[in-house]
Amino acid sequence: MQGVQGVYLVTDQDLCLGRSLTSVVADAVRAGIACVQLREKTLPTRFFLNQALALKPILAAAGIPLLINDRVDIALAAGADGVHLGQSDMPCEAARRLLGPDAVIGLSVETWENVTEAQDLDVDYLGVSPIFVTPTKTDTKTPWGLDGLARIRAYSRHPLVAIGGLSTANAPDIIKAGADAIAVVSAICSAKDPYAAVRELVRCFDAQP
Amino acid sequence: MQGVQGVYLVTDQDLCLGRSLTSVVADAVRAGIACVQLREKTLPTRFFLNQALALKPILAAAGIPLLINDRVDIALAAGADGVHLGQSDMPCEAARRLLGPDAVIGLSVETWENVTEAQDLDVDYLGVSPIFVTPTKTDTKTPWGLDGLARIRAYSRHPLVAIGGLSTANAPDIIKAGADAIAVVSAICSAKDPYAAVRELVRCFDAQP
Repeated sequence: MQGVQGVYLVTDQDLCLGRSLTSVVADAVRAGIACVQLREKTLPTRFFLNQALALKPILAAAGIPLLINDRVDIALAAGADGVHLGQSDMPCEAARRLLGPDAVIGLSVETWENVTEAQDLDVDYLGVSPIFVTPTKTDTKTPWGLDGLARIRAYSRHPLVAIGGLSTANAPDIIKAGADAIAVVSAICSAKDPYAAVRELVRCFDAQP
Repeated sequence: MQGVQGVYLVTDQDLCLGRSLTSVVADAVRAGIACVQLREKTLPTRFFLNQALALKPILAAAGIPLLINDRVDIALAAGADGVHLGQSDMPCEAARRLLGPDAVIGLSVETWENVTEAQDLDVDYLGVSPIFVTPTKTDTKTPWGLDGLARIRAYSRHPLVAIGGLSTANAPDIIKAGADAIAVVSAICSAKDPYAAVRELVRCFDAQP
């Protein structure tokens, strides 16, 4: 996927410390975020769509892709750039048919079987989930760890977005192990200064040889 | 909407007394159901889609429309005939753009303001909800009652699907008050004999002058 190399923000309105999602995303854009995934697991459809419509112009103006978690209908209605799909979401083939060849489709892989099945799928990246244990997502499988990430890197033809327990502390190792992008939720949404948090994470990429 | 006159089944797998939804729907089809709305408020997308794909051939073979509650993406992926939208679901205009001019779009109206706003909307019917208090839906507004239904009938240009607390006991009055269709959940899903339950409801229409 063109462009998803760098810092990838997965939103969680509830973790934004009372700030609006649009303000956190605007800070992240100024700081050099590479991609934003809007994730809303409890909002009614209309409000989820309104969130997507609010983020779209901020990201489009900066040429940054907006992806929607799970919901192909929200992506279509909001004119988002694509979707991020979990293993219980719509099958990738169905999403591709609805979204077209240019849409960005990401797929979470939580087991080795997921990884091998993904090899022949028309997806733009794999979300390697979770790398470490994380409080923001409790329904995930055994963490991949750095070794698991490296193993997927050696096998997969797809770009890899690492997610789960990532921060500036471990980002350099994650990148070294083969991640094209590092996805974070609370490390940005709950940061005292989201702009500074993104800058620090971006620097982890700049520091790579 | 062509064809939605009669008995309209809104599904609830949890109320099917351990029977599969496909078996209950197949019984309803044999008994003369006019329309089926698949409603799944908690299933992950993939399983919701699988339910829709399982119902589609049963209904298509009988020429009965399959509508999907809320989820335009499920409707598109399953090749369903349309969607039923609540006031917190996707706006009708957006759903129409995605589904096209031939799709069936129904809209729930829970307040008089909803009714007047709907007058200019490109929808195929209004779901008048709820007529009476009902245990299967707890997030609804003040019941319309027979008087409210009659008032909407006198005002609205749309076909009316009544829902909420309906049964063979009150169906004749509901039809007299102006309902084109009566929608039921538990009266079919939880019936000892869903076939017989649908037959009885269908007879309420046949008995009208």
